[in-house]
Amino acid sequence: MSVIDELVTSNASYANAFQHGALPLPPARKVALVVCMDARIDPAKALGLKEGDAHVIRNAGGRFADALRSLAISQTLLGTEEVAFVHHTDCGMLTFTDASIREQLKKNKKVDADHIAFLPFNDLDESVRADLRAYRASSLVRQDIPVRGFVYDVKTGAVREVKA
Amino acid sequence: MSVIDELVTSNASYANAFQHGALPLPPARKVALVVCMDARIDPAKALGLKEGDAHVIRNAGGRFADALRSLAISQTLLGTEEVAFVHHTDCGMLTFTDASIREQLKKNKKVDADHIAFLPFNDLDESVRADLRAYRASSLVRQDIPVRGFVYDVKTGAVREVKA
Repeated sequence: MSVIDELVTSNASYANAFQHGALPLPPARKVALVVCMDARIDPAKALGLKEGDAHVIRNAGGRFADALRSLAISQTLLGTEEVAFVHHTDCGMLTFTDASIREQLKKNKKVDADHIAFLPFNDLDESVRADLRAYRASSLVRQDIPVRGFVYDVKTGAVREVKA
Repeated sequence: MSVIDELVTSNASYANAFQHGALPLPPARKVALVVCMDARIDPAKALGLKEGDAHVIRNAGGRFADALRSLAISQTLLGTEEVAFVHHTDCGMLTFTDASIREQLKKNKKVDADHIAFLPFNDLDESVRADLRAYRASSLVRQDIPVRGFVYDVKTGAVREVKA
């Protein structure tokens, strides 16, 4: 049995207990989160969100670049009015460089990834500030709303704000 | 009090009850999920994941294009060996076109978004198959592992597999 099969089996129990029916499409709490894909972070549990509350955008590092399209849609069509970036301690993005992953892909898969920016970083707080700056430089997203950045500590479960 | 302040307050309770300490960085169940950012989906609850289990990549629609960088990192550096795409019923991506959102951005924000592919779709099952095809066409991600696609029903909480 593959892991995906196990997830489908788990989903049957979830659906069996599912009671609230369809919720509205626009996020009830009008907030969009940009969070790292890291397995150790459960944004809903860690931030007290229930189904229907918030857009949750996740990618390697919780970077703005891959979230721009989603944020533009979230704000333009679905009315979100706050944004929070959540990076975290012990992030995989701190463990490599563009050069090292390109070399690994070349060696293992014979593929040239020189055109891909993998967006690693070597300073956690600075990575949050860099994404806040990138957000502030984009005309596709709202500049008249709160946009904040945080570091989540995988050892304690606590978030700490990083000021721009 | 902003919504983000409320989330930070909720996080204090979460951190207070946080007991497991730091988990390993690589996902324990070696799976990466690509899920829509939709507020109504809680991937952990819906699929029976606990902290540490799986990479969760989320964007508007659950599209491959914005997930490629993250999947390459997940597989190359962190050992994931299965991929599942999860799109869903009543998705916002079914409600607009590139032309309509570009027009809206031009009108509301005076911004030219003609260079952005917003990746909407008008057929849900076909959007899943399109992402499975896009995955299969990429040399940056593993082709020797299970890659599957699903539609999540926001009315029932159940997933249904879509075959490539």
